[in-house]
Amino acid sequence: MDPAFGPAFSKDEYNARVVATRHAMEARGLDLLIVTDPANMGYLTGYDGWSFYVPQAVAVALAEPWPIWMGRGMDANAARLTTYLPDGMIVPYPDTYVHNPEAHALQFMAQELAARGLTKGRIGVEMDSFQYSAKAHAALTAALPDAETVDATRLVNWIRLIKSPAEIAYLREAGRLAELAMASGIAKVAVGVRQCDASAAIFQAQIAGTNDFGGDYPAIVPMLPSGRGTNTPHLTWSDASFRENEATILELAGCRRRYHCPLARTVLLGEPIPRLAHVAEVLVEALETAIDTIRPGVAAEEVVAAWQKVVRPHGIEKDSRMGYSIGLNYPPDWGEGTISLRPGDRTELQAGMALHVMPGYWTDDWGIEISESVLITETGAECLVHFPRELAVKPV
Amino acid sequence: MDPAFGPAFSKDEYNARVVATRHAMEARGLDLLIVTDPANMGYLTGYDGWSFYVPQAVAVALAEPWPIWMGRGMDANAARLTTYLPDGMIVPYPDTYVHNPEAHALQFMAQELAARGLTKGRIGVEMDSFQYSAKAHAALTAALPDAETVDATRLVNWIRLIKSPAEIAYLREAGRLAELAMASGIAKVAVGVRQCDASAAIFQAQIAGTNDFGGDYPAIVPMLPSGRGTNTPHLTWSDASFRENEATILELAGCRRRYHCPLARTVLLGEPIPRLAHVAEVLVEALETAIDTIRPGVAAEEVVAAWQKVVRPHGIEKDSRMGYSIGLNYPPDWGEGTISLRPGDRTELQAGMALHVMPGYWTDDWGIEISESVLITETGAECLVHFPRELAVKPV
Repeated sequence: MDPAFGPAFSKDEYNARVVATRHAMEARGLDLLIVTDPANMGYLTGYDGWSFYVPQAVAVALAEPWPIWMGRGMDANAARLTTYLPDGMIVPYPDTYVHNPEAHALQFMAQELAARGLTKGRIGVEMDSFQYSAKAHAALTAALPDAETVDATRLVNWIRLIKSPAEIAYLREAGRLAELAMASGIAKVAVGVRQCDASAAIFQAQIAGTNDFGGDYPAIVPMLPSGRGTNTPHLTWSDASFRENEATILELAGCRRRYHCPLARTVLLGEPIPRLAHVAEVLVEALETAIDTIRPGVAAEEVVAAWQKVVRPHGIEKDSRMGYSIGLNYPPDWGEGTISLRPGDRTELQAGMALHVMPGYWTDDWGIEISESVLITETGAECLVHFPRELAVKPV
Repeated sequence: MDPAFGPAFSKDEYNARVVATRHAMEARGLDLLIVTDPANMGYLTGYDGWSFYVPQAVAVALAEPWPIWMGRGMDANAARLTTYLPDGMIVPYPDTYVHNPEAHALQFMAQELAARGLTKGRIGVEMDSFQYSAKAHAALTAALPDAETVDATRLVNWIRLIKSPAEIAYLREAGRLAELAMASGIAKVAVGVRQCDASAAIFQAQIAGTNDFGGDYPAIVPMLPSGRGTNTPHLTWSDASFRENEATILELAGCRRRYHCPLARTVLLGEPIPRLAHVAEVLVEALETAIDTIRPGVAAEEVVAAWQKVVRPHGIEKDSRMGYSIGLNYPPDWGEGTISLRPGDRTELQAGMALHVMPGYWTDDWGIEISESVLITETGAECLVHFPRELAVKPV
């Protein structure tokens, strides 16, 4: 195994993940699980490459000791370099399946699994994965007319929820990268500077990282709504310049071996409007209250209730979720799709989980985002980032 | 319309795209088209934001003058800022639909379209879009038990194939960004330099762009296989340093207002192995022959035949496609999923199309990528990038 390419974790750690997946499969009565989410593929095997724009999958069978990687021919060598899988468990498909309306790679994969005798019984598929389109499902089920498919969306994501010591080490390093990137971004935001130049500075910091370790590409590019655009969270940058008396939101992540630590801050050039400054103070207080609430045994929605108790007297209402589980991911999302911090989510928090506590607040005219990413410990919440928790005001 | 946020094209250009889509729908007998591919959503409306990690769609109805944008509540203001759509055509869904296994946003969208009387007749859906999962399709069809859904994957992509003058202007600017990024990357690749630092330099150039215009995020991050990793195309970077007598492949794109100009080059530190140097020369000659073949009226596969005629006498065989249509896109792919340069693709090339001619060649031990992006003109192919077309050798 060449250390320049090898997996991010030990063979034992991948084995333990596969064993945990088998247990979850048994509990759900699944004989085979076909995983197409690239984060789940990476979690189970180490596989890493920007090849998820074509169909690919990892199959876990109760009857097989190893997971099976299936993907495009030219990516098989990437599977050899980035996983511990033996060669028989790496199954390339011909390039004619790529972007071909007449032949879908899921059909090939189904036939391959059938030939290995693995398609008898109940087959779990990730019905709501980006990499499992309606057509992929139709191709799979047409190729396996007698198989029973069951929705197993996020079965592996829920196993990913509790992080191992090795994963936690990457999360903490991702925290360092987030600090660097946020500092670079805020330093660059100034009247007359183009948004694209601030974004470039953020990328540079995210990827070059520290002298001790570099950064991986985050699953989401820096989001940089500015001025009126702060009324919505997911705008990126433009060539326009930052303007006096306007706020800019920076939401970004540090990413280390695909583990994410997201962070949001808001920077204001000039004098804040009084309502914005007041709301920022309330949001910081509420964020700290929310973080203080986080510890093992607390339900996700209790964190929200604690936050709401602080903001409601100030007339602040928020109807979107205020956070989610984070960790290993690929574009388009750094969230794990499991825990959402919102009323009704009664998931019990446990040590080893990691959350982006992101109570963004948007009116039709402006918005503020000040967030923290935390690791849940035996006794509470450890902030993964150390960065001033405030509305950053830069006099002009 | 605030120029800091507004759409990349005129209202007339978007109108023309919607009209062309309606014509294609009529030809296919569709009354309604539900588009979920973010590139197609942007093409039809201008909508732009990194919100495609949750369900969103643009619906085009034969019976409605405007397309309808449907997305997450917090993204509705992004639709107001980045499109010309009137407010009644912007339909937000409640946040409870986000990452909620009990309620899928496609169900909400189906109900909204039904309430507008638009779900009678045949409904086209993008069955093979990343943003149209098996579960999305199940939710839509369950909410519309009487509707007939038809696969309309890439209906809009095929309309996108011929670029307008305004799109071509962006493609040419993307070419400038690709040149800058490639020059920065190759300059940084040196013995002992970390791969992540070369990647950071590429990102910096891609995004900061020129004094006249900045860059947008490409749909794929820089791919940077090095050393043994050059035997597969989709590896990104690591913390490892570049090594003497090893090659590194750089595949990247410039991206301007979401329009991509991809480019691949291979750089060698030290002395090339003789076979690699020879293959590189043959590949450059074959690439030039392929480009010379490109003009209106030629079939896609004829370009491949011309390329093969040059390489075959040298024992070079390639079973993967050697290029594809490019233009507007979002992660995870900068290719349009329409034309593939491979045997069997008889699509007739026309002026206004743009192709990434990418005859990458990989053995189990090493690989070479030297590519060009071209615009098809009335008389031939215009290279969108001007960059030395050779194996870059850097003495150590």
